[in-house]
Amino acid sequence: MFVRDLYKLPVGAPFSGYFVIEHVEIKRHRTGEPFLRLVLSDKTGTFTALWWKPPKDADLSIFRKGDVVFISGSIEYFNGQLQPKLSEIRVASPGEYNPQKFICETKFPIEEQFTVLLEIIDSVENPYLKRLLESFFYDDKFVEKFLKTPAGKTIHHACIGGLLEHTLGVVEICETVSRRYKSIDRDLLITAAILHDVGKVHEYSVGISIDRTTEGILLGHLYMSCEMVAFKIAEIPDFPKSLKTKLLHCILSHHGEYEHGSPKKPKTLEAVTLAYADALDSRVKGFEEFVERELGSGKGWTKRHFAFEVPIFFDGEIKYGEEDGKEESSNL
Amino acid sequence: MFVRDLYKLPVGAPFSGYFVIEHVEIKRHRTGEPFLRLVLSDKTGTFTALWWKPPKDADLSIFRKGDVVFISGSIEYFNGQLQPKLSEIRVASPGEYNPQKFICETKFPIEEQFTVLLEIIDSVENPYLKRLLESFFYDDKFVEKFLKTPAGKTIHHACIGGLLEHTLGVVEICETVSRRYKSIDRDLLITAAILHDVGKVHEYSVGISIDRTTEGILLGHLYMSCEMVAFKIAEIPDFPKSLKTKLLHCILSHHGEYEHGSPKKPKTLEAVTLAYADALDSRVKGFEEFVERELGSGKGWTKRHFAFEVPIFFDGEIKYGEEDGKEESSNL
Amino acid sequence: MFVRDLYKLPVGAPFSGYFVIEHVEIKRHRTGEPFLRLVLSDKTGTFTALWWKPPKDADLSIFRKGDVVFISGSIEYFNGQLQPKLSEIRVASPGEYNPQKFICETKFPIEEQFTVLLEIIDSVENPYLKRLLESFFYDDKFVEKFLKTPAGKTIHHACIGGLLEHTLGVVEICETVSRRYKSIDRDLLITAAILHDVGKVHEYSVGISIDRTTEGILLGHLYMSCEMVAFKIAEIPDFPKSLKTKLLHCILSHHGEYEHGSPKKPKTLEAVTLAYADALDSRVKGFEEFVERELGSGKGWTKRHFAFEVPIFFDGEIKYGEEDGKEESSNL
Amino acid sequence: MFVRDLYKLPVGAPFSGYFVIEHVEIKRHRTGEPFLRLVLSDKTGTFTALWWKPPKDADLSIFRKGDVVFISGSIEYFNGQLQPKLSEIRVASPGEYNPQKFICETKFPIEEQFTVLLEIIDSVENPYLKRLLESFFYDDKFVEKFLKTPAGKTIHHACIGGLLEHTLGVVEICETVSRRYKSIDRDLLITAAILHDVGKVHEYSVGISIDRTTEGILLGHLYMSCEMVAFKIAEIPDFPKSLKTKLLHCILSHHGEYEHGSPKKPKTLEAVTLAYADALDSRVKGFEEFVERELGSGKGWTKRHFAFEVPIFFDGEIKYGEEDGKEESSNL
Amino acid sequence: MFVRDLYKLPVGAPFSGYFVIEHVEIKRHRTGEPFLRLVLSDKTGTFTALWWKPPKDADLSIFRKGDVVFISGSIEYFNGQLQPKLSEIRVASPGEYNPQKFICETKFPIEEQFTVLLEIIDSVENPYLKRLLESFFYDDKFVEKFLKTPAGKTIHHACIGGLLEHTLGVVEICETVSRRYKSIDRDLLITAAILHDVGKVHEYSVGISIDRTTEGILLGHLYMSCEMVAFKIAEIPDFPKSLKTKLLHCILSHHGEYEHGSPKKPKTLEAVTLAYADALDSRVKGFEEFVERELGSGKGWTKRHFAFEVPIFFDGEIKYGEEDGKEESSNL
Amino acid sequence: MFVRDLYKLPVGAPFSGYFVIEHVEIKRHRTGEPFLRLVLSDKTGTFTALWWKPPKDADLSIFRKGDVVFISGSIEYFNGQLQPKLSEIRVASPGEYNPQKFICETKFPIEEQFTVLLEIIDSVENPYLKRLLESFFYDDKFVEKFLKTPAGKTIHHACIGGLLEHTLGVVEICETVSRRYKSIDRDLLITAAILHDVGKVHEYSVGISIDRTTEGILLGHLYMSCEMVAFKIAEIPDFPKSLKTKLLHCILSHHGEYEHGSPKKPKTLEAVTLAYADALDSRVKGFEEFVERELGSGKGWTKRHFAFEVPIFFDGEIKYGEEDGKEESSNL
Repeated sequence: MFVRDLYKLPVGAPFSGYFVIEHVEIKRHRTGEPFLRLVLSDKTGTFTALWWKPPKDADLSIFRKGDVVFISGSIEYFNGQLQPKLSEIRVASPGEYNPQKFICETKFPIEEQFTVLLEIIDSVENPYLKRLLESFFYDDKFVEKFLKTPAGKTIHHACIGGLLEHTLGVVEICETVSRRYKSIDRDLLITAAILHDVGKVHEYSVGISIDRTTEGILLGHLYMSCEMVAFKIAEIPDFPKSLKTKLLHCILSHHGEYEHGSPKKPKTLEAVTLAYADALDSRVKGFEEFVERELGSGKGWTKRHFAFEVPIFFDGEIKYGEEDGKEESSNL
Repeated sequence: MFVRDLYKLPVGAPFSGYFVIEHVEIKRHRTGEPFLRLVLSDKTGTFTALWWKPPKDADLSIFRKGDVVFISGSIEYFNGQLQPKLSEIRVASPGEYNPQKFICETKFPIEEQFTVLLEIIDSVENPYLKRLLESFFYDDKFVEKFLKTPAGKTIHHACIGGLLEHTLGVVEICETVSRRYKSIDRDLLITAAILHDVGKVHEYSVGISIDRTTEGILLGHLYMSCEMVAFKIAEIPDFPKSLKTKLLHCILSHHGEYEHGSPKKPKTLEAVTLAYADALDSRVKGFEEFVERELGSGKGWTKRHFAFEVPIFFDGEIKYGEEDGKEESSNL
Repeated sequence: MFVRDLYKLPVGAPFSGYFVIEHVEIKRHRTGEPFLRLVLSDKTGTFTALWWKPPKDADLSIFRKGDVVFISGSIEYFNGQLQPKLSEIRVASPGEYNPQKFICETKFPIEEQFTVLLEIIDSVENPYLKRLLESFFYDDKFVEKFLKTPAGKTIHHACIGGLLEHTLGVVEICETVSRRYKSIDRDLLITAAILHDVGKVHEYSVGISIDRTTEGILLGHLYMSCEMVAFKIAEIPDFPKSLKTKLLHCILSHHGEYEHGSPKKPKTLEAVTLAYADALDSRVKGFEEFVERELGSGKGWTKRHFAFEVPIFFDGEIKYGEEDGKEESSNL
Repeated sequence: MFVRDLYKLPVGAPFSGYFVIEHVEIKRHRTGEPFLRLVLSDKTGTFTALWWKPPKDADLSIFRKGDVVFISGSIEYFNGQLQPKLSEIRVASPGEYNPQKFICETKFPIEEQFTVLLEIIDSVENPYLKRLLESFFYDDKFVEKFLKTPAGKTIHHACIGGLLEHTLGVVEICETVSRRYKSIDRDLLITAAILHDVGKVHEYSVGISIDRTTEGILLGHLYMSCEMVAFKIAEIPDFPKSLKTKLLHCILSHHGEYEHGSPKKPKTLEAVTLAYADALDSRVKGFEEFVERELGSGKGWTKRHFAFEVPIFFDGEIKYGEEDGKEESSNL
Repeated sequence: MFVRDLYKLPVGAPFSGYFVIEHVEIKRHRTGEPFLRLVLSDKTGTFTALWWKPPKDADLSIFRKGDVVFISGSIEYFNGQLQPKLSEIRVASPGEYNPQKFICETKFPIEEQFTVLLEIIDSVENPYLKRLLESFFYDDKFVEKFLKTPAGKTIHHACIGGLLEHTLGVVEICETVSRRYKSIDRDLLITAAILHDVGKVHEYSVGISIDRTTEGILLGHLYMSCEMVAFKIAEIPDFPKSLKTKLLHCILSHHGEYEHGSPKKPKTLEAVTLAYADALDSRVKGFEEFVERELGSGKGWTKRHFAFEVPIFFDGEIKYGEEDGKEESSNL
Repeated sequence: MFVRDLYKLPVGAPFSGYFVIEHVEIKRHRTGEPFLRLVLSDKTGTFTALWWKPPKDADLSIFRKGDVVFISGSIEYFNGQLQPKLSEIRVASPGEYNPQKFICETKFPIEEQFTVLLEIIDSVENPYLKRLLESFFYDDKFVEKFLKTPAGKTIHHACIGGLLEHTLGVVEICETVSRRYKSIDRDLLITAAILHDVGKVHEYSVGISIDRTTEGILLGHLYMSCEMVAFKIAEIPDFPKSLKTKLLHCILSHHGEYEHGSPKKPKTLEAVTLAYADALDSRVKGFEEFVERELGSGKGWTKRHFAFEVPIFFDGEIKYGEEDGKEESSNL
């Protein structure tokens, strides 16, 4: 049962389900008896619940932020907010629940999209770049992480598979531009586009929610992507030094401006193309995600976006093409 | 004879040709006799020439900045700079010379590209938008101006046909993005992409060189494009007011940021897509043009670009695809 | 009865009056019975009220944000906040209440001020500019809207008649400056000053509160003022093109800087004068309004102003000259 | 004879006059003989002159930047630039020439304007502020300096009397605003307006040209004005401390923004009014001066202004009202 | 008893102690009876308390923000927050409580540190600068204030003695730099370092909490420090004017950038050294204080710092060297 | 013979010496005969020379930018500039001249300073950090490069040994700060200080002049330092991952702000200390170098510094302590 479905139940109705603990506090009745106040969530929303009368001998300290718990209880409201009283709560075992209940996943089919990516890699003719790409994408361990990584925590592509989806979005734009501008080194551009965000596999940790790692906050994916690429290149014999420099420059400068965290501004045709293609794909997706979250299926104005610094107007319909039909597993 | 070819002639060699006056001064010999000092150019370069001994009764004041003149003389150098002495100079009649000698032209074939544009217009399904587009592009007088207009004076697409070329570049990227993001109103986006710079037909005057008009400097093409579109819409019965608002918003916000001269930041999916697509196409082209101008067929670093604020590194080859073969008329 | 007067009543006292609904929620008692929680306001303040025991068959969904309601009940406090319990609530009919109870009005007498404006228009000697001004200010429909429009939603002149008041404030400063600087085209400057914000009649919707329209947020009054002027000019035979350009430039650039939403910076004597006069009048008024709202009749520091980014210090007295005596209608 | 008149003489014509040395270099003929190359100017322009054949025993080192010299010679041109050859040059004695030939003077009559200022001081009712103003403007030594000081070196009011002229311009605007906004403490505002730039008497040194002093560059007139006012206040018994604080705040914040060199942003009604009035008067005057210098009596576009960062368009006529008739002394 | 210790008591336990009133409200029971809601604090934290049943004849209006009160009552919680009910409350007399309970004090021993400062003053060889320093630091009244003043309200050294501690921190860095860079005028630099923040004795008022004065907010310590130094210099015969200018420049420019409130950027070796030394010492201390406040003895990430605009990572241990052992008085 | 000494010779005097070619052009006499125009320099200045009459069969194309040439000729001036005519010119062999003639060298004795650095490394107690430092500074090849590398091309420490000098300057400040702030991890800070700029060994190429490499411009020393450190760490068994992250963060963030090219802002005590210490040392040195270059042994104002955006005032004496006595080799 999703959070958004709880709201549809009448007051007093019984319910049960799996939720993740966002916040937990042991509080006390006036009598001094302890009780539990929890903020619980899944990917569809958040609510507060009270475990009003735990058994006398219950150890309330075992519940920690981030745990998935199974609860049952009945629907109540306090001050207009859903605030059920629980009759039961226990920490769930990993196998019991579907992790997809807690973190959203790209609307695009991951396997198909990965196949598309491998075909693009196959189209790269420069043997050093192709070998470099293969050293990443034929490494099962890396691929497993890559396919699960989001492209962001809140701003854009903030879901499992988001990095893959965003990578392909950027590659598509780069292909379009390189068809028109023949002076561009297409293989270099496409390689840079595919690798530009690989550091995000270490920048984000994806469990029941998306978090930025300490390493991610202190170093950032621009640097981490470059370091990963530099170590891979070190294993490829005779990889041309100037090719390495140009490729790392594309990655290092792909945020385009100093104030967006690029230590270098783009200074080559390929770097400038990548930087704008990245900005375009992430901004459009960021707009779309924000509209969907804020307006649902409604129309009109969202509130002001915290990063884009504008409210967004939308009077159309959120659509995902043929992939739209993909269903969420119903037995969560 | 192009300026760049004059440099290949030996000192003392005779030459003749058509050039435009960039600067003219009547100066005096120590004897008090007047002579003429001219800065002349065509699209391949600039040089200084002296008309050292004009006939006694010559009216030197008839030569004005912007005139095309026919000159003959012989090659001389002063202080390492080409500085021929002229034996003859006269103002040329319009029919005598090929205007293309003075202002560069898009490398893409204008007619073919215009056909592509008409096909895109034909693909627009929204009847109001299609009619709006037709009111521009089936108006011969507008089209004649549009096809001649550059997209800029110095930064990008600064040549005859540049506006058409840039418009198609932006449309291509928008098509790519709208195929991926189905929530975008594709007809609105494509219409905005086609019309976003139409005000440039009044912002630039294209004669023998490209200049910005007083109107262009005081009002800018963002406003002028919107005014043009607003007047055309006023003639289309029942054009929906909200559609007009959304379309004008795309045009008005397409520079993306206040500091780039947009009075509004993009606040719709279509506006944000257009703004980034415009930035991407003009920046890549601007890089390419600068590399070509600064490095010719060489490799390495350009000087710092005055607007992009970086030097550009290029070690590839400037290429224009199949259209590359298009020849400059040889009988200039 | 104004909100600020409710606070003066003792707990338990009965009261009644007209208020506008800022927020409304249907909530439920623990028993499942619905009740109504409302946030109500007039121009003097805001409070929460509960309709604790509506009749069984009452349709609670008829109350909507923006409705004016008549309520009666008795004064109660919850957690130190006024929170009366209502015994009656019904939607009021338009004729029942005085709309001025809900939105503040300029302290200056509107009719007198409008007469001053007409006299200034009469003093314009340039026939094209005079005719242009008359086409706006002898159009009853436009004038009716103009006189009701505020100059802002929160920052300055945020009240009925605020646009007129601000327009005259700017005109006064422009007159002072044009008397000293004879090189200024006084007629052009005064015309621009009068028309610079006319687009605000479409940017703001004034009902029971001031709101920005979708058109206003997407296009802004700079553009909308220009478009309105351009259409009016199109109807005046032989209006000089360069005069139109200079006038539109003044309007388009009157926010002075790109980051304040002007697509062009002022480039003429008249434009630069208008931009600074506009900034001066709106900033002073903004300071005064903020001081009045924050300090009432007190002295000392306001909190930090959200837009000016400073707190304001005031140890004087808010005064409005002779117009100060103007009374609020007492039969609200 | 003014520099601008030299240009009207025929080649070879004799001339003589007083000019100031902007730059001087002792150079050598190929024979090793020394000669003098000078850049000379008065307030109407600049030219280069050669003292080609000084007497054998001449001490060329006595000529220094800033000296006024008397020269005679004949008109010659080199490379289109005026470059007369001198037959005589000697350092002029102070009494010989009219200093007004070298530095421009306000077009407004200084004595009349000063009388206006004294009348305004007389209208101040607050006894402490009046006494403070009198301590400055009834001090003959200060007044003598004040009347000679410019308001700037290059940007606005860069002429003798410019500080007086600018001060009155700012006062006029402040009077206009304080008539409308009665909450303003008019006496405080007018006092601040009169004193806001007094530190400029130490920031600029006015001799034959305007220079910024070392003290001026290291401390600036904002600080120096405040220090001067603070020392004067220290001599007035019982001057209220809070009045001092509010007055100094107006002066210290009158550049409005940190990036314009104000250590504090305006935080009172009077301070914000002064800051915008100062900006308005100096910007309009700066535009006018630039137009006059760049276009003379012509029309059209100036080059880009180095500080305002725009070119300026002007198609009117530079005028100074009745004072316009004031003549420059013809026997310079 | 400190606030942080109250949390360790069981529900229902009695307690008593001295606390400062941060906020006070007279509220009413449903019956109309008044009661008192207080927010109380000391330097270790904040809590809410209710005086639920004051005596009938109690004058509740005598309790004001800023008063220190003695309270007794018993521990209760409301909604998880400490909210004791009081049985007694009275305003405390100044002698009753230790003021150090309410405002933190530098961890360094003030007297020892002041001795160090006097030794540094003694090491200054320039007689004018030495005399200037002595005019401040041998003035008992000034010294008493100086030793109590914090260097900031929230960002760095926000405690009694903080100004002394910060001054020495800056002096130490300046000494290190002046040993390496011999071109620096060491006496000037050290004098400027010692005096750079003296205006803070008027910018902050230190009672039971630290507040900025109206004078401090309107003028700032940069200006106030300069004015204080200027008046002291005026009393020293023959103090060289250029030395005064250079010293005031160091003080006036020590925030380094316009946007940090310096009206001048550093333009001498001494000024630039001081500005960076000040930035270094205050930033490091600001980081340390924030880490200590946010993490206590924990490790990991703080929340985002409101001024530095980053979260801070710390996995070490907060230490204060030998001075670390200094105990807080236990009989508070 | 240094360039600055050429100016002391009389016109016509013969001279000879070694200089580096900054610019070379083959030009032609009116007769068509080629001649050579060269811009030559050493570390004391720049001048233009003409090889007016090369032998008929001379191959002028062998002279290239960057070559050191031996020339002889006689002193001439043209237009006030030194412009000798050459009688002889030939490319010099590497052994012939002292390279120190062309690029300045730190005033501090390199060997002594390097010994100091090794002692500091020895004082590091953390075994991983010590081993890391040793892996750099006990690698002879690296050390050789390191000791020759400047810390900049123009802004600060732009001389051989400048990197060593700057590194020690930063370390000294960090030691001072870490003695006061015990919470700082001193070993981490000192290690970061020593390694923060090691990437400059690849960013600058030092031959006869200092140049930035293509790799340096495209990637920058922040990234390159990190990559170098990351590869060295990879060879140290069990180097703690969190220590690596914190160290790389210090290096990556040491420019302090995005706009100075740091992809991350400092987020730890050590990183923030390093960033400010680096800024302090480089700014002071940059001021000193600029004063010395612009004023020589004079006093007063320099011109505006292109990067610091201020002119600098200096009325003291440039001094280098005991090391000052170090002589430039006299047999250059």
